[in-house]
Amino acid sequence: MRSNQALRELIEAVTNRPGYSRYVGTRIGEVSAGKVAMRLDRRPELLQSSGYFHGGVISGLADHAAGAAVTSALPPERFCLTVNLQVNFLAPADGVRLEARAEAIKMSGSVCSADVRVFSLRADDSETLCAVAFVTLRVVSMPAAPDASPARGAS
Amino acid sequence: MRSNQALRELIEAVTNRPGYSRYVGTRIGEVSAGKVAMRLDRRPELLQSSGYFHGGVISGLADHAAGAAVTSALPPERFCLTVNLQVNFLAPADGVRLEARAEAIKMSGSVCSADVRVFSLRADDSETLCAVAFVTLRVVSMPAAPDASPARGAS
Amino acid sequence: MRSNQALRELIEAVTNRPGYSRYVGTRIGEVSAGKVAMRLDRRPELLQSSGYFHGGVISGLADHAAGAAVTSALPPERFCLTVNLQVNFLAPADGVRLEARAEAIKMSGSVCSADVRVFSLRADDSETLCAVAFVTLRVVSMPAAPDASPARGAS
Amino acid sequence: MRSNQALRELIEAVTNRPGYSRYVGTRIGEVSAGKVAMRLDRRPELLQSSGYFHGGVISGLADHAAGAAVTSALPPERFCLTVNLQVNFLAPADGVRLEARAEAIKMSGSVCSADVRVFSLRADDSETLCAVAFVTLRVVSMPAAPDASPARGAS
Repeated sequence: MRSNQALRELIEAVTNRPGYSRYVGTRIGEVSAGKVAMRLDRRPELLQSSGYFHGGVISGLADHAAGAAVTSALPPERFCLTVNLQVNFLAPADGVRLEARAEAIKMSGSVCSADVRVFSLRADDSETLCAVAFVTLRVVSMPAAPDASPARGAS
Repeated sequence: MRSNQALRELIEAVTNRPGYSRYVGTRIGEVSAGKVAMRLDRRPELLQSSGYFHGGVISGLADHAAGAAVTSALPPERFCLTVNLQVNFLAPADGVRLEARAEAIKMSGSVCSADVRVFSLRADDSETLCAVAFVTLRVVSMPAAPDASPARGAS
Repeated sequence: MRSNQALRELIEAVTNRPGYSRYVGTRIGEVSAGKVAMRLDRRPELLQSSGYFHGGVISGLADHAAGAAVTSALPPERFCLTVNLQVNFLAPADGVRLEARAEAIKMSGSVCSADVRVFSLRADDSETLCAVAFVTLRVVSMPAAPDASPARGAS
Repeated sequence: MRSNQALRELIEAVTNRPGYSRYVGTRIGEVSAGKVAMRLDRRPELLQSSGYFHGGVISGLADHAAGAAVTSALPPERFCLTVNLQVNFLAPADGVRLEARAEAIKMSGSVCSADVRVFSLRADDSETLCAVAFVTLRVVSMPAAPDASPARGAS
């Protein structure tokens, strides 16, 4: 079992590699084995035309947090790739910040899954549940096998 | 029934408003009532750490295309908001371009849905099906009702 | 707001109408506004070939419980029909009883949703989370509108 | 590659084992490698309270057909277990018969998936698309590994 500090370093390293997750400004919140929170601050380029966080941005944050939560509960040298993403939008994400809280709820050597709650936070830190997501991932050794479906960031 | 040209203008106007869809570079492909294709060119900030299009980017494009396909088949002054998004990743999106082809498969006055196939295109225009998505949307008059869950771009 | 007793009577009436839910032996557990539990005892005709509860049976119980949970939080004379069902199987349902615990997590006048946890219970009442489901429903007045998609029991 | 006749015999053997699929009266339609159709005739115990096929019954048929479609494209001695089921209901299943047409759209040694269209057929054989489902499955050797999530019939 890696320490929470080691887990955080792993997740920060992956999140900060050049690419989408760094580009949109993903920040890491609480981390422990099997549980990871990720945050995004409001920026004009992350919004849809009504001024709320865009569904794709919410989906991407949920996916990244789910991948990190599952990876954090896997043995070292094992990673995961998203198989599918079910995202249910419940309320407008009209806050100043998004926070996705992911929890691994099924671990195995082949297929894992995580439950994610995404909150929209206001300037006063009050929050609204704006989406729930369920993410299924498959475990791979690094580097990914050739039939990988690697539509993800945390791997 | 609006002409395809009028539909294209509507969809272009929504896509080109300031925000996520314009920012990532969404371009509009074929448009007819109930069917819309959307494209994204490869850019470093849209990729995950293995160099493929990020799952959130694929999800956002599928969502935007689905919203446009349904909106294009609604009466004028009616729009739609995403209720949920089911995205299944099938192969690495390792091409130079993504294209999401959305088709409205259920229209009604309240809840609609669209089926989306997302392809990864190579420089020689050969393509691989990299994801399939099913998107459920609800119909609203403009402006959206207060209980809206507007995690979307095309509305 | 109806009393829990009135809600139970409503849900029992729907569940006990001739049809699938009565036929498979659905029993009603805890009921309060927005929360309903439903149970099924193990019977050979509800199992798949390895001797576990069949995925269709788990899905049907989750759907029925979700519909009841949402209906119990709607005003009288309003009902709901399932729009979609996302069922994630986590462990073999090898117990003597299934229990689906549904909670309405989004209520509105048009589209509602419920989160469902399905447990497999052993003879000693220990339990395993065997599936999680997310169910989206749309609200209708009774009788259902002609474009209804009424693939459900609790309506 | 097994012959279509060998595939049909395999699928019939699994479907006709004691349990849910046989009990509800599942019949096998067209079979080829990667494509399987399954049918159910209307019976009172398969309906919900409005007289349409119940959502759980539709889900179970889609699941069983998906499992058979994927199994039919796997090497002998390999089977599959459902990971998740996304079922979208589009129209009332008010016909005399259901037919689920499943097609494997992603095959690999670990995770596979199938797209399913479910039709409601009237006495004159006209048909309505009443549901679309997407099913993700994982591949196992027979017998299933201990972390199996075997909520299915075709395995």
